[in-house]
Amino acid sequence: MIRFHGYFRSSSAYRCRIAFNLKGIGYDFTSVHLRRGGGEQKTPEYRALNPQALVPTLEEGEFTLTQSLAIIEWLDETQPGPKLLPADANLRAEVRAFAQVIACDVHPLQNLRVLDYLKGTFGADQAACDAWCGRWITDGLAACEALLAKRPATTYCFGEMPTLADICLIPQVFSASRFGVSLEAMPRVRAVAAACEALPAFAAAAPKNQPDWEA
Amino acid sequence: MIRFHGYFRSSSAYRCRIAFNLKGIGYDFTSVHLRRGGGEQKTPEYRALNPQALVPTLEEGEFTLTQSLAIIEWLDETQPGPKLLPADANLRAEVRAFAQVIACDVHPLQNLRVLDYLKGTFGADQAACDAWCGRWITDGLAACEALLAKRPATTYCFGEMPTLADICLIPQVFSASRFGVSLEAMPRVRAVAAACEALPAFAAAAPKNQPDWEA
Repeated sequence: MIRFHGYFRSSSAYRCRIAFNLKGIGYDFTSVHLRRGGGEQKTPEYRALNPQALVPTLEEGEFTLTQSLAIIEWLDETQPGPKLLPADANLRAEVRAFAQVIACDVHPLQNLRVLDYLKGTFGADQAACDAWCGRWITDGLAACEALLAKRPATTYCFGEMPTLADICLIPQVFSASRFGVSLEAMPRVRAVAAACEALPAFAAAAPKNQPDWEA
Repeated sequence: MIRFHGYFRSSSAYRCRIAFNLKGIGYDFTSVHLRRGGGEQKTPEYRALNPQALVPTLEEGEFTLTQSLAIIEWLDETQPGPKLLPADANLRAEVRAFAQVIACDVHPLQNLRVLDYLKGTFGADQAACDAWCGRWITDGLAACEALLAKRPATTYCFGEMPTLADICLIPQVFSASRFGVSLEAMPRVRAVAAACEALPAFAAAAPKNQPDWEA
């Protein structure tokens, strides 16, 4: 049985939950509370699994894996269930690039440790942190919209089945809503998000449906 | 012939150059000067290729691809030459995770647009920006060191051949040097960096050896 260390609000953990659900794979869950007691991710025990002290982490026997995109590709390559990356090499590359727009150039900038630095060193208040996050989310999702607009419209980002692209997009759209980012100018992103949110695999992965959820 | 849009100092373009060289693949190069005229990456022509207005971008005929990790995996899957990802699924996942520590959680935080925001909105001076970059580079490379220390020592990060992990590590080590980050406590990182830098594929990809290099 796979063990999955995550946190309900973590966008990276949310991605992995969607992937587990789409592939129909069960897992044992360990909650790593990022706020409690200064952050459970910073304990020596957790750092031994994940030297970055970030969620998520996957364990299968002696094998330990960090980083959500690596975890999702590993699940796709080693576990049964529908494929999360297309078979065509060019399309697969476009899916990865789309996912990396979010996973590299948006999400890490709104990470807890980054916001703590902005507050602690630059004296940023909550409004300044929200504006910071809003800027990168807006830029990133506008780029996602432009990448989608280059292609014929499909139900999901890259066709009629959800892929790694949708898996990254939906948690980022959730986060956009938290930070009050408008998706008004992003019709393709909104249409894909609506299609994904109608799927049980996406809905069950939402933060509010997790055992460690807190209001 | 592949066309590659890059910039000598960009860490992401540097990664792709190493990959091209390791696989022995030639390409036509277009320099995208990130500073000149307010940034050549911001022109409508370039944004049509890369909606993020970031380098690098790859073109092959009608196919356009952004994001360095997606580009490198595409090269590896579609082009001849030595493999840049291991055949074993678990090891391949570990290589991807290592690469993503750098490509997701270190490099985007030291991007030009991010530093411009820190200066413009938070009034950060050069020393404050250097400290910011230094913090994320130190954290990230320390995590890389810990990931390497879990494994038997090998010439390169994950064995006796360079992989995507080394391709990401070397530009980040170069950047660490620019920002005065000490690698004193990272013997494994230093040993791998020394081994890579002795290879012509890595040396030829260095910023100072590019046609658009400026002192």
